[in-house]
Amino acid sequence: MEQQISVARDILEKNDRMAEKLREIFHSKKVLVLNLMSSPGAGKTTLLENTLKALKDKYRMAVIEGDVQTNNDARRIEATGAQAMQINTDGGCHLDSSMIQKVLNEFDLDKIDILFVENVGNLVCPAEFTVGEDHKVTILSVPEGDDKPEKYPLMFAESTAVLLNKTDLLPYVEFNMDRAANFARSLKEGVRIFPVSAKTGEGLQDWYAWLTEQVQAKK
Amino acid sequence: MEQQISVARDILEKNDRMAEKLREIFHSKKVLVLNLMSSPGAGKTTLLENTLKALKDKYRMAVIEGDVQTNNDARRIEATGAQAMQINTDGGCHLDSSMIQKVLNEFDLDKIDILFVENVGNLVCPAEFTVGEDHKVTILSVPEGDDKPEKYPLMFAESTAVLLNKTDLLPYVEFNMDRAANFARSLKEGVRIFPVSAKTGEGLQDWYAWLTEQVQAKK
Repeated sequence: MEQQISVARDILEKNDRMAEKLREIFHSKKVLVLNLMSSPGAGKTTLLENTLKALKDKYRMAVIEGDVQTNNDARRIEATGAQAMQINTDGGCHLDSSMIQKVLNEFDLDKIDILFVENVGNLVCPAEFTVGEDHKVTILSVPEGDDKPEKYPLMFAESTAVLLNKTDLLPYVEFNMDRAANFARSLKEGVRIFPVSAKTGEGLQDWYAWLTEQVQAKK
Repeated sequence: MEQQISVARDILEKNDRMAEKLREIFHSKKVLVLNLMSSPGAGKTTLLENTLKALKDKYRMAVIEGDVQTNNDARRIEATGAQAMQINTDGGCHLDSSMIQKVLNEFDLDKIDILFVENVGNLVCPAEFTVGEDHKVTILSVPEGDDKPEKYPLMFAESTAVLLNKTDLLPYVEFNMDRAANFARSLKEGVRIFPVSAKTGEGLQDWYAWLTEQVQAKK
């Protein structure tokens, strides 16, 4: 048991050291890096497709896709015209810094303003592994329920921004926006909350405005 | 790295050994044990609430609730009249056999026909850790998308039964039942597929009939 805890600590510390190196690279290249996390099927890829299309004349953007299996998401991203690299964790439940480091030389960071990292669909494990990002962003979809910030607190405590996605389904499910938002705020002071529908486009302008602020803060 | 792999293997082997002991206990007591797994918010607890109410005059049932935090789910289960024990993993992404073993003496197994284990909401990690169950059961909710069996294959490859929940939302989302079911079947021969709405009750009779078959097979 002690051996297990010690190895777990070693893994996290090793990841943190590599993340710090990545952070220095991203900083020197002035690349804004966002680590997108959510449950499976909360709408990360659809959100990215919309974002890449909406801001493509304004910013140079690229995506690292994390999935247990398949390269479906990378193909969806490439269809928007943006560069995408797929990482398959082959059973692994999160991305870590060494995985990011291994694909990083596929990108020309001098020509990227925003690098999105779409993490493995999992509301637990990815929160523990920083990948050198500027911000962790959590997407919670309305059908999952407004109790999820309370039940999965670490993810929300780590996130600078929370998107409450699939607002188009609000008429058909029980979801109290205030309850979800207030729990998220209790876990992270100053968190920005964006109710959006990546499907209909509702609320996305506020998300784009926030992204613009973050890019400008990085320059 | 080798040390990490070796420790990971030790953890899984140790879990398997404990699961085998649990399996012997459950077998000797003729308790049917089902390990319910899904993404966060797919409807595991609502399904259990309905099941416990519908079958309470027929079977003696109890629930072990796994959550990262809170005892909300155990309170919902107890409100149906069934016994529930909450396990908080405190950040851990799955239940394991030693956690089950620790709460098992809270139950009188001579007076239980079905023990449900509601795992942590996570479509990745729980699949690797058997807890001595007769069957793993995966709940996939319609808003998550019909591509999830392909993207999270281990969970579906391990599951004897798959519930496709929240069918009441089918008119409002893109979800091809055949696509999801066919992927699940390609991963697990003979898997039973149940399209259900735990909210409206649609399709639950077939799930109850399957449960009845499993209880009878155990006696």
